[in-house]
Amino acid sequence: MARRTGRRPGNPATRDAILDAARAAFAQRGFDGTTIRAIAADAGVDPALVHHYFGNKDQLFLAAMQAPVDPREMLPKVLAGDRDGVGERLVRMFVSVWDSPAGTAGVALLRSAVSNEWTARLLREFLTTQVLRRVLDHLEIDPAEVPLRGSLVASQLIGLALMRHVVRLEPVASAAPETLVAMVGPTIQRYLTGELPG
Amino acid sequence: MARRTGRRPGNPATRDAILDAARAAFAQRGFDGTTIRAIAADAGVDPALVHHYFGNKDQLFLAAMQAPVDPREMLPKVLAGDRDGVGERLVRMFVSVWDSPAGTAGVALLRSAVSNEWTARLLREFLTTQVLRRVLDHLEIDPAEVPLRGSLVASQLIGLALMRHVVRLEPVASAAPETLVAMVGPTIQRYLTGELPG
Repeated sequence: MARRTGRRPGNPATRDAILDAARAAFAQRGFDGTTIRAIAADAGVDPALVHHYFGNKDQLFLAAMQAPVDPREMLPKVLAGDRDGVGERLVRMFVSVWDSPAGTAGVALLRSAVSNEWTARLLREFLTTQVLRRVLDHLEIDPAEVPLRGSLVASQLIGLALMRHVVRLEPVASAAPETLVAMVGPTIQRYLTGELPG
Repeated sequence: MARRTGRRPGNPATRDAILDAARAAFAQRGFDGTTIRAIAADAGVDPALVHHYFGNKDQLFLAAMQAPVDPREMLPKVLAGDRDGVGERLVRMFVSVWDSPAGTAGVALLRSAVSNEWTARLLREFLTTQVLRRVLDHLEIDPAEVPLRGSLVASQLIGLALMRHVVRLEPVASAAPETLVAMVGPTIQRYLTGELPG
């Protein structure tokens, strides 16, 4: 993140201390419950230095997660266009990221999340606050329905990544992206905008 | 398995040698490519002894996987009833198994499958040969379509187990089973019997 936003890399030890504090804070208190101020205090530095090195809280979170992609760069393409096509466009974006070199980091993250409670919490916060909340906000979904819809979407997309890239269950493992878009897109669309029970 | 089918437990060292050989064979050559005869040869015992200790190839596979449940005992309930309700009944069975004490073994298996290529292959063979193939056979699905449909079902069900029991993403983690049946059932139904692209 630092290089891409033109920020100076800074002192490596200080950077690492901030990233360690950020990972601990995001995992323990969640994204919403964490402030730059608190992370700075935990790392023993001035909040201005955290902003200087990493930018805003979103950017710090992506750096702490070592996220290989920034959802804010990808989501406009998903959100542009008709409401009924969001499911397919989200699957298309998701599959293309996981099929790209960034997918290697995704597999490592997924492996770690499954064996490590901390990484699982960070992955959960990443999915909900950086991806799903933004999609559901854009669709103007009733906020009370956002968590259920978001976690169902996550269950299908992460399951797809797991079968395609980790367990390598054929033919999902080597299916053409558009086959997955056609099959899984309607599922995601229903989870995002379809009727909820009760 | 041995106790439940009334078979004698036998010599523990011989049993373990057979189970090790079975795990290696099923992971390397798949369920269909493996014979009791080959496993017996690898373990240095007579095939009759393998049958005597473990029963048939399905039973040996479940023992080698340390599967906490036998799909052949659960599937009749899923398959009985109307074709359009198979998706919901499969999700209901799946959620109830994972919510039961057997789910703990399931989580361990899933964790191992994600970090270990061998366990991943065994899990893949378990899902395809012991669960999905039987469901799709019963529905008289075109055999050419079985692998794609089966692996899509697996992607959603395993993703659901992962989010509910490992990552614990709310509200999927603590949702009432019937909420999941209502939301995920139609997804599974479409993957099983809906139209395929192209």
